[in-house]
This record gives sequence, C-alpha cells and structure tokens, in this order.
Amino acid sequence: MRDLSRDFGACAINTATLGFQAPISAVIDAVARAGFGGIAPWRREIEGQDVSAVARQIREAGLTVPGYCRSTYIPAADRSDFRQNIESNRRAISTAAELGSQSFVMVVGSLPQGSKDIAAARAQVREACALLLEHGRASGVRIALEHLHPVYAADRSCLSLLSEALDHCDAIEGDVPEPWLGTCIDVYHVWWDPNLARDITRAGAGRRIFGLHVCDWLVPTEHPLNDRGMMGDGVIDIPAIRTMIEGAGYAGLVEAEIFSAENWWKRPMPEILATCRDRFASAV
Amino acid sequence: MRDLSRDFGACAINTATLGFQAPISAVIDAVARAGFGGIAPWRREIEGQDVSAVARQIREAGLTVPGYCRSTYIPAADRSDFRQNIESNRRAISTAAELGSQSFVMVVGSLPQGSKDIAAARAQVREACALLLEHGRASGVRIALEHLHPVYAADRSCLSLLSEALDHCDAIEGDVPEPWLGTCIDVYHVWWDPNLARDITRAGAGRRIFGLHVCDWLVPTEHPLNDRGMMGDGVIDIPAIRTMIEGAGYAGLVEAEIFSAENWWKRPMPEILATCRDRFASAV
Repeated sequence: MRDLSRDFGACAINTATLGFQAPISAVIDAVARAGFGGIAPWRREIEGQDVSAVARQIREAGLTVPGYCRSTYIPAADRSDFRQNIESNRRAISTAAELGSQSFVMVVGSLPQGSKDIAAARAQVREACALLLEHGRASGVRIALEHLHPVYAADRSCLSLLSEALDHCDAIEGDVPEPWLGTCIDVYHVWWDPNLARDITRAGAGRRIFGLHVCDWLVPTEHPLNDRGMMGDGVIDIPAIRTMIEGAGYAGLVEAEIFSAENWWKRPMPEILATCRDRFASAV
Repeated sequence: MRDLSRDFGACAINTATLGFQAPISAVIDAVARAGFGGIAPWRREIEGQDVSAVARQIREAGLTVPGYCRSTYIPAADRSDFRQNIESNRRAISTAAELGSQSFVMVVGSLPQGSKDIAAARAQVREACALLLEHGRASGVRIALEHLHPVYAADRSCLSLLSEALDHCDAIEGDVPEPWLGTCIDVYHVWWDPNLARDITRAGAGRRIFGLHVCDWLVPTEHPLNDRGMMGDGVIDIPAIRTMIEGAGYAGLVEAEIFSAENWWKRPMPEILATCRDRFASAV
C-alpha cells in the first residue's frame, strides 16, 4: 500500500467536500496550496464558466482531475426524457474532456416518479452506459460507474453493488486490455459488502477501477445523504479497503468526498483541507 | 400467488406495527378481532409476563405465531459478553417454544463499540448461529436469520444479504430435508438486491424461507429506522416479491412489520389494523 503520510500527491479533493462555499477558481487555489495532487470538480461549478480557463488554471496549478461529477440521472418515464438525459450526459462528457478529466463519474439514478419497476430502470441504465461509452471513448474520457450504497436504491442509484457494475462492464464492453468503462469505488458505498474482496479482485483483474473515494460511515448517521464522516471518524476500515484496491492494481488518486451539511461544510475551507491532510496520513 | 383480499387468515401482524401502545393481551384481542391469522410479538411485551397465559390467550384466539422477535445482538468485544448474548438468546428461544412460535427471529447485531472489524463480527455471528441452532432444534423452534438492509450494517446487522444468510445456513446445517436454520425475508431489506430472484429460488429449494415480512420503502425516507411505510405507500413492488417467494414454495404467513414512529404509531390500533387489512388486499 502506498504511503500517504508524507506526500499528498496521490491524494485528491472532491470539491463537494468543501461544501461549494467558494467559486471554483478559489477552490482550485486552495486545494493546490494545501499540497494535494488532484481535484474532482462538480458540474454545478463548471457549467456556465469559461471551461478552458478553468482547465488551464487546474493544469497550471499542477493538479490532476481524476473524475468529473456527475451524470444526469438516466431512467425516465418516457423515451423523450431518456434521450434528453443521454444528451445532457454527452455534453458533460465533452466538458470532462475539456477539463482533462481522467473519467466521467456516473451516478445513474433510479426509479422515475411513480414507478416501482427497478428492473426497467436498470435496463435503461445499461442501454445508456453503452451509448455513453461510445461518446466517452471518442472524447478520450473513461466512464466510471459509481455504484451507490443500497440506501440510495430508490432515488439515486439502481446500481448498488460493485459486482453489478462489473457485470455491466463485461456485458457492454467485453474483455479488453484498456477498458473505457469501469467503476469508481467509494468506501462509503461498499464497506459493508460481504463480497467486497472477491469483487475488488475481479475489478482489478479487468482493470476496471477508475477511482477510489474515501470518507467514513458515522454511527449514528443522522441523515442518509449529507451526514458522511471525515476519514477516521466512523466505522469503515479504510486502510483495509485501500490495501485491497491497490493490491488489485489500482494506482490512481485517492479522493476525499465528504457530504457533510451540518458539520464539515460549515467550516472554513482551510480547516477542512488541513483535516483531510491529517486524515489521509493517519486514517486512510 | 395466494389471494389475500378475501381472507386474512394468511396474514399476520407483527406487534411492532402497532407501536407498543397497549399491553400484549389487548394487542392479541385486537389482532384476532380484526381477522388476522397470526401475531408476532416482541420480547419487550412478553418477558416478565405469565408466558403460559399469553400463549393460551394466543391459542384460544386462534392465532398462529410465525416468529418471536428478536435476538439479543451477538457480536461482543469480549468472550464473556459474547457468552452472555448467547445465553440471553437461549432463554428467548425457550420462551418462543412456550409461545408456540414457529421461529425465533434473529437480528444479529454488528460491530461492537469501537470496532471496525466487520469480519470478526461476522465470525461471531456464525459461531452463535451454530450454538443457537442446537438449542432451537432441541426446543422445537426454528431459527430465522433476518438479514437487514445494508443501511443497518454498522449498528444492527452485519448480515445484509439473503445470499449471505443462505451461506450461513449451508455451512452450519448442511443440506437437510427439514431445516431448522433459515431466513426471514423482509421486503424492506431485500427489494433493491439485484440477485433477489436468484437467491429466493435458492432459499426456496433449500426450504429455508421461514418468514415473510412486508412494509414499504418511502421516498423520501426521513429516518433510516423508524420511517418505514405502510404497504402501497412506497416504491417496493411487493406483489412481485411475494410472487417469487410463494413461487419458491413458501406457504407461511405474510406478516406486516412497520416501524413508523412519526406516523402509524401515533394512530389508534383499530385504524392501523384496518389499514393493514386494506393494504394486504390491495398492495401485497
């Protein structure tokens, strides 16, 4: 396992961790100044901006972009909305390419309003992945499926398990030496999975691990979406999972992504970034 | 699939659905009067009572007891606490026998305070299952492992997947024609699982389905434990899951178990029971 305690070049900050409290240019400066090697921005910060200027600032700050967050949800009640969702994601993939992002992070969505048919939602997701993979490959951007914890299965992601994401990859792209379709593994979503070791090995063998997100699961968790913990404050054995993932061949950035509306997002950016540094060194 | 719309004899009420607002004798009367075929009580209502009198009342009311809820959590930080947890569960299994319960429902617990070692917790659970199976068999009570939704993996159940529960059963009891170790499937915990059909088929083939709980997943869910929905009010396709489970050979009671602190538990018992009847008929 890589030593993250001396050099934060292998560590990245997902901008959601900072609670979107400053414009992207200030966020890029702060992340670079804190010594991190990468930054993963969100569309809300980028769309409507001068993307090439943002990309230049990121490049000149010496930062890598491991992933661009995130997809428009896919499943829709009718084909016209489905096609609109695909188009929105194509545009975002083009922006990811302009940013020099290594991947486009897909949170796939789930049941359209009023639907109870999760199988139908999954079928739409599979169809969309095939379409977006084509655009990603043409744009030079890998598609990273972020399977979410099953607590989000109703409203945010009908893709819950790493094994499911890998099944999609195998079915859509087949066995290729340099895949363009893979997964982004967030410890928050997978730590509980009894098949985690098996599936990480499979993902690594297929070179399908495009990203690694870290945060922690708090006990108690006050809110299912926005009460994620700083690394070390919860019950996830993050070093054990990172050991598995790096053991499976992953050599990309380790990215802190912490949704914490009532705690971390209320603190100043320098404090959040300093704490992330400490915790990358001691708890990741 | 059985028709639940005319005769509620195949339907049971888990007493947690009623919010523990009355003594068990009044609850038994109310459930029987509403025409249900079964009642699943909790230890908090039974322990300290005259168990044989409660059992007699249930019997005379013509009610079946599909399950007795629920186990003391298993994993402990030291062996002495682990042994105490086993003893507590043995006593509860004896009570289940006295009540004439068809099964003892096990919610297994998870990480002891301060631990991040979910594999160790799982090992304790497996050891405990083997010990309690012996006592259950000797007492004439089947042990029903209730695997919980992964949202509870940190604090309530390190057993999350139906496939995991079945692995436990196979490893501990082996392939037997009339198992004493099986699972209780709650739609709330499994509805999102992409392997659900596969695992229900496996469970049915092994005659491991000892119980079926119903409620619904609300969108949004305000609280991860106590904001479960009345059947029909959420996104779970309950009839589809019941069809799979009955198709796999399950012929036991269908039991409503609804944790709803802010909604249903605040209503009078007759209203809750009448609504359950309606929803068993229309949404299960």
